[in-house]
Amino acid sequence: MSKWVYSFGAGHNEGRADMRNLLGGKGANLAEMASIGLPVPPGFTITTELCTEFYRNNRNYPADLDAQVTEALARVEQAVGRRFGDAAAPLLVSVRSGARVSMPGMMDTVLNLGLNDETVRGLAETSGDARFAWDSFRRFIQMFGSVVLGVDHHRFEEIIETIKMDAGVVEDTALRPEDWRRCVDEYKDLVLEETGRPFPMAPRDQLWAAIGAVFGSWMNPRANTYRRLHDIPADWGTAVNVQAMVFGNMGQDCATGVCFTRDPSTGENIFYGEFLVNAQGEDVVAGIRTPQPLSKAGAKPGEVSMEDALPDAYAELCRVRETLERHYHDMQDIEFTVQQNRLYMLQTRTGKRTAAASLRIAVEMAQSQLITRQEAVLRVNAQALDQLLHPTLDPRAPRTLFGKGLPASPGAASGAVVFSADDAEMRAAKGEAVILVRIETSPEDIHGMHAARGILTTRGGMTSHAAVVARGMGRACVAGAGGVSVDYGARTLSSGGKVIRGGETITIDGATGEIFVGTVATVEPTLSGDFSTLMEWADQSRRLKVRSNAETPLDAETARKFGAEGIGLCRTEHMFFAPERIGAVRQMIMAQDEAGRRAALEKLLPFQRQDFLELFRIMAGLPVTIRLLDPPLHEFLPHGDQEIADVAQALGQEVDQMRRRAAELAEANPMLGHRGCRLGISYPEIYEMQARAIFEAALAIAEETGQPVVPEVMIPLVGTRRELEITRAQVDRVASEVLDHAGKQIEYLVGTMIELPRAALTADKIAEVADFFSFGTNDLTQTTFGLSRDDAGKFLPHYVEAGILPKDPFVSLDIEGVGALVRIAAERGRMTKNSIKLGICGEHGGDPASIAFCEEVGLDYVSCSPYRVPVARLAAAQAALGVAGDKTA
Amino acid sequence: MSKWVYSFGAGHNEGRADMRNLLGGKGANLAEMASIGLPVPPGFTITTELCTEFYRNNRNYPADLDAQVTEALARVEQAVGRRFGDAAAPLLVSVRSGARVSMPGMMDTVLNLGLNDETVRGLAETSGDARFAWDSFRRFIQMFGSVVLGVDHHRFEEIIETIKMDAGVVEDTALRPEDWRRCVDEYKDLVLEETGRPFPMAPRDQLWAAIGAVFGSWMNPRANTYRRLHDIPADWGTAVNVQAMVFGNMGQDCATGVCFTRDPSTGENIFYGEFLVNAQGEDVVAGIRTPQPLSKAGAKPGEVSMEDALPDAYAELCRVRETLERHYHDMQDIEFTVQQNRLYMLQTRTGKRTAAASLRIAVEMAQSQLITRQEAVLRVNAQALDQLLHPTLDPRAPRTLFGKGLPASPGAASGAVVFSADDAEMRAAKGEAVILVRIETSPEDIHGMHAARGILTTRGGMTSHAAVVARGMGRACVAGAGGVSVDYGARTLSSGGKVIRGGETITIDGATGEIFVGTVATVEPTLSGDFSTLMEWADQSRRLKVRSNAETPLDAETARKFGAEGIGLCRTEHMFFAPERIGAVRQMIMAQDEAGRRAALEKLLPFQRQDFLELFRIMAGLPVTIRLLDPPLHEFLPHGDQEIADVAQALGQEVDQMRRRAAELAEANPMLGHRGCRLGISYPEIYEMQARAIFEAALAIAEETGQPVVPEVMIPLVGTRRELEITRAQVDRVASEVLDHAGKQIEYLVGTMIELPRAALTADKIAEVADFFSFGTNDLTQTTFGLSRDDAGKFLPHYVEAGILPKDPFVSLDIEGVGALVRIAAERGRMTKNSIKLGICGEHGGDPASIAFCEEVGLDYVSCSPYRVPVARLAAAQAALGVAGDKTA
Repeated sequence: MSKWVYSFGAGHNEGRADMRNLLGGKGANLAEMASIGLPVPPGFTITTELCTEFYRNNRNYPADLDAQVTEALARVEQAVGRRFGDAAAPLLVSVRSGARVSMPGMMDTVLNLGLNDETVRGLAETSGDARFAWDSFRRFIQMFGSVVLGVDHHRFEEIIETIKMDAGVVEDTALRPEDWRRCVDEYKDLVLEETGRPFPMAPRDQLWAAIGAVFGSWMNPRANTYRRLHDIPADWGTAVNVQAMVFGNMGQDCATGVCFTRDPSTGENIFYGEFLVNAQGEDVVAGIRTPQPLSKAGAKPGEVSMEDALPDAYAELCRVRETLERHYHDMQDIEFTVQQNRLYMLQTRTGKRTAAASLRIAVEMAQSQLITRQEAVLRVNAQALDQLLHPTLDPRAPRTLFGKGLPASPGAASGAVVFSADDAEMRAAKGEAVILVRIETSPEDIHGMHAARGILTTRGGMTSHAAVVARGMGRACVAGAGGVSVDYGARTLSSGGKVIRGGETITIDGATGEIFVGTVATVEPTLSGDFSTLMEWADQSRRLKVRSNAETPLDAETARKFGAEGIGLCRTEHMFFAPERIGAVRQMIMAQDEAGRRAALEKLLPFQRQDFLELFRIMAGLPVTIRLLDPPLHEFLPHGDQEIADVAQALGQEVDQMRRRAAELAEANPMLGHRGCRLGISYPEIYEMQARAIFEAALAIAEETGQPVVPEVMIPLVGTRRELEITRAQVDRVASEVLDHAGKQIEYLVGTMIELPRAALTADKIAEVADFFSFGTNDLTQTTFGLSRDDAGKFLPHYVEAGILPKDPFVSLDIEGVGALVRIAAERGRMTKNSIKLGICGEHGGDPASIAFCEEVGLDYVSCSPYRVPVARLAAAQAALGVAGDKTA
Repeated sequence: MSKWVYSFGAGHNEGRADMRNLLGGKGANLAEMASIGLPVPPGFTITTELCTEFYRNNRNYPADLDAQVTEALARVEQAVGRRFGDAAAPLLVSVRSGARVSMPGMMDTVLNLGLNDETVRGLAETSGDARFAWDSFRRFIQMFGSVVLGVDHHRFEEIIETIKMDAGVVEDTALRPEDWRRCVDEYKDLVLEETGRPFPMAPRDQLWAAIGAVFGSWMNPRANTYRRLHDIPADWGTAVNVQAMVFGNMGQDCATGVCFTRDPSTGENIFYGEFLVNAQGEDVVAGIRTPQPLSKAGAKPGEVSMEDALPDAYAELCRVRETLERHYHDMQDIEFTVQQNRLYMLQTRTGKRTAAASLRIAVEMAQSQLITRQEAVLRVNAQALDQLLHPTLDPRAPRTLFGKGLPASPGAASGAVVFSADDAEMRAAKGEAVILVRIETSPEDIHGMHAARGILTTRGGMTSHAAVVARGMGRACVAGAGGVSVDYGARTLSSGGKVIRGGETITIDGATGEIFVGTVATVEPTLSGDFSTLMEWADQSRRLKVRSNAETPLDAETARKFGAEGIGLCRTEHMFFAPERIGAVRQMIMAQDEAGRRAALEKLLPFQRQDFLELFRIMAGLPVTIRLLDPPLHEFLPHGDQEIADVAQALGQEVDQMRRRAAELAEANPMLGHRGCRLGISYPEIYEMQARAIFEAALAIAEETGQPVVPEVMIPLVGTRRELEITRAQVDRVASEVLDHAGKQIEYLVGTMIELPRAALTADKIAEVADFFSFGTNDLTQTTFGLSRDDAGKFLPHYVEAGILPKDPFVSLDIEGVGALVRIAAERGRMTKNSIKLGICGEHGGDPASIAFCEEVGLDYVSCSPYRVPVARLAAAQAALGVAGDKTA
């Protein structure tokens, strides 16, 4: 005989907190609370296994269930001293669903089950309150009717409205017992009319119908969709909790409330919550009456705290708070009811919290030795940490308000206004800061949102596409700025008579929704001491080094401030777009021969050397990985007719010549074109110039600081051993020339990106000539999936929504496919050269789940954008502690 | 003590034919011939190991070499009865290089070594011919001077010219002994002047200098480059052959000649070759005198055959021919000399031959039981077979000659004139036959040449880029048509006042170099009985099935005629470009919603069904793999402004709307865009229409022929299991609808292309929902290398030339990288489903080396273009017999 039913409360606790899988979260915690002596109304849990058995057995219950329910119910009757269906002293129960994870679509709670035309009288008599009894009955019919029988809940509310009009009252509380009695009659008529059957009067019929409805809700479409999206197996099942009712609505010595053991917004160690006197749970949520604070200290003028109104129950609740935190070692989210001055606990669970609160709670709990430092490190969601790291507006900076919208995603950002995702991407690729302005965004704009510093929309709310995506990406966003109008044709943005044109700068504050004209100074986030403390603990736990992707001195400084241990990716092409350089770059592209190219490169050399000098100075003593030129040359040529004419004139070239060259260089699939080391092989002089700039700068900084950087020269897009061999020979030759000339030595490495499947598959060969591999997982994802990031917007969002892909593979590494190649390359590379240094420099380097994978594969470091460095440090620590970052609460 | 020197001839043979690695090809075969009793002048071979030792030891010989050479030389002296350097009866020798494979850059032969001012007199006396002696001496100085001492050979020739002028004669043969003696004196002066040292007179000095020169040539730049390109290790080394001279130039009873044991052009079993009376080897090659035929039967009027001139030697040579073929079991390429009526063999090696000859020789040798049938199958180069399979002009077809060029690559082809590679590719992609016309081609035109049926250039010769590439690709090519002029601007082609415009049709005959106006009817190649015989033998040996890629009835018929065992790839998009269909396709693309798309697809259904009806009828009883729509939709939209306007009008759409849709659909990297199954998921109605057409057609043909085809529905560009699951469900549903409606059953499969690295890596998962995998190695090569076939022309040819890649990976499968994925996918796919059918349908399916790989991995079939089917059948047989197709002679 299987055990399907577990009792709790009244001294008979068959469950525990760690039986969550069997009893669901709610049931397990009820049993746990009861077993540590907290006041829990007695009840029982029907297990998740029964749910699975129910479905396995074609929606039939096993034969032995009825007896077990009857027995458990009898134990509740005995503990409470009332009997289910008893006309004089009826036992009433609540029925609640409770799976092992909280899930939308599951059945709502049914309270007061067990009432009928007879027991309602017994309840009136035993409570001495007819109004309470009839109100409870109508509440039951309403909940049961809508939740179990599927009658539209609006129909019930219409009946109350009619009765209130007839009675000439406004508030529900003003209705008399007879009004509620009429209400019950009309409710019963409604149910008969809607369902074709009378409302069930036998309490056991009510109970089995409610249990059946809980199990039924496990397979409703909403739940099925949610499970598919979150990869939750259907056979986890849900449990059903049946519990003796306690009443917070029996008079002024009764109340109901919800609270958190600490402030879920700030994490401050105060008792945080609200309650209502003389109310049932649903009233707190419904918002008809204003809930009151718990503590005297938290009460504003005119508010009556629970500490004042129900001092004994409050004192008991404070003891419960202490007990629960000590017992669960975490902040709890609690539901309680006070019936006639006596406190009853209805639920406890780990409380949801903001990132800031999560940080503070973890650090303070570790400091008070409630948890260990390692537990503290595991407690903070690395992904969410990002929220704390964004710049805000400098409060003292002058500003001109332009308009206002919703504060959709935190952070302040300034940039040139662009009106299309493509523009955003193009200009950002040249190193420009842009704000993407759209009436509304759609999945096709994702690449532009990614490229922009901030996003402004004039339509849509806090959950609009723009808002959701921007928060996910950590981009500042002001959404639904209705007072602002956008004219794509004229390329303007106007508000209250003021006009801003495309290309002009605006500043948005995603924390307030404000939009300002021009640039408003921002301040970097001031990070609390808790932040540093947690980072320090994280650093003690992690094995992976964390570097940053950085091209500019500002990026490098930010990165170092956030604790980056070097630069993992400096994309040198970003350095070529500045006006004083692009001319020489274009001259190089237009040159007829190598001599012409060399002459143009000679002009670029001092700029490039200066770039590296600045980065090396900031990163003195640390490794700096510099990727040689990667994009195809046509990216540097002008596109529009006018621009081509201007540039041709500036360079003293024929327009036709320039157009011809642009046409010559144009590519059908630039992503798969003449780029990366293929350029270095076609035009060795380019890489030679870059190598010269690197080694000259490194020598100078070694001299200046005494702490030489270790330049790591990285060759992009290598697919064969020979490509790396040829290009590394160029670099080595220049290095000896520069170093021999100076008579100095310097340590440096030459390695390659692993960003093509072929490179991963032949990593054993490539490792023969590489000092390091850096996984370029952006391009590796593109080639492994055959998926252009620029074009994926048309279908990738649908793929993620429909669960064809679990996540956007450009955001979180596709471990099954792309990860398989990373693993192959790491293994084969080490097989050839055990000491080979392995890192990752795609966007995935800042994604906690991807970092966990990097830890598992044993990479040496991850590299991410400067603001993600703390996220990566924490995620790396969590990975080292054996928990994937995205799985922590 | 190592053995560095191997003697041959005169009854002391230390080598054998199978010692090629040690003795080089030439040395091994001299020893072999001698040991089977053929008349070989005695000599010795210094081994390739000595060469390696020489370089390993810093260009020094081991101490024991000198003694071994002296001993071997003494044995030759004894056999010949002359002594090296003996004034009275001097031994003269030849010195030749001979590596294990024939290689350019190696040292030329030095003859008559051992002559000096003294021995020349001895030679004059013993031969009784002063003219011969002095001529031999000057020849020796000339060869030794240019080959060993590096004096420009033109300088020697100038001296002869002067002497001839002085003597007032035209022919060398008219010079007298004293003229040659003067020539010797002037040659010696020249050597002194050019090298600063007198010509070496001591025969042993001459010998060691010549040996040193052979070893030196192993490391010259030309040899190094060749070895790098052909992956030949430097430590293979070369051998040196020193052999007693025999003289074909001692009088009318002397001769020298080269011959093949069968006709190397046709393969006919006749003795084929030429000879010169009273000449040395170089005279045959120099072309000053006209060589004469060997046999009386082969002599034209005025020619004197060897059979007539030297009947005894000829009879002996015929016996040698028999002996060599019996001994080597293959056609031989022979060099011989007749000295005073006595035949001497100087070389034998396997003879090079045309594809036709190779076929005929193999079949006839097997029929006469000289070799087995399996050996015959292995003897024919599968790649070369292609030459025999091209269409030729119908001799009876009327034609108008337009111009003439060089017959650069066989085959006759008609098509619309296009002037750029891009045009060629674009129009070919729409199923149009085109002839690419260029002034000359460059590596950037490769994709267009591939797409074209034929190539015409007005500049360049038989080895121009166009000619070489066209032959490699099996495309018809007329090169260097100097009388034809091309105007790219006006898009015309003119010749003798006639003008052809772009888009008009021409016909070229690559076998004659002729160009015709319009279409000239062609006839399919008439294949010899030998061809069928060999194919039959090949089919008995092969395991791999061979299918064809085909979309049109003509392709399908050609394929079946060539022995295809089904269709491995029918690209349905090719069917959508015909004028009566493209309208509906565009209407589908422009539709606002699914209903609009379905309405348009409804129009396409009958066309599509008809397509399949025709293919299925031709392939009755065989499997037909149909790939559902693959390319991105924008490929079907018009591009130019005018075309957009026309199409918009035709469809009753706004021009702006059409332009907007085209812009919406445009992609940065179409290769990685919204295509393949991604379309099938976004617009399920497209695949549903195609599936319906397939199953309706299959049912009809089953009814009609009683031999149902097995439709294999192939989903393109699958990267995840779920994509295939979704799209296969669409297909299965339509299949049941159609079959249930008809009340019939039909066998069919649903599978996928494996053309993305991710698909290969997750093949175990994908196999759960696939009946077959077909490796789409074109796209798999693109994604694995991150290399766009459309753009690779800018650097890929250089990569192949420079040896960065051994071969163009789009022509021959990259076994190391792409092959690794094929292997992974095959293994993982079979792990999940042992019965899964595996094939390949990329261009590689017709490439012998790639087919050998497919055999090794154990695929079930290859699929290639119709004309490659015989190539594939033969290559598959060779692979099964364990020899890669490209390794056979």
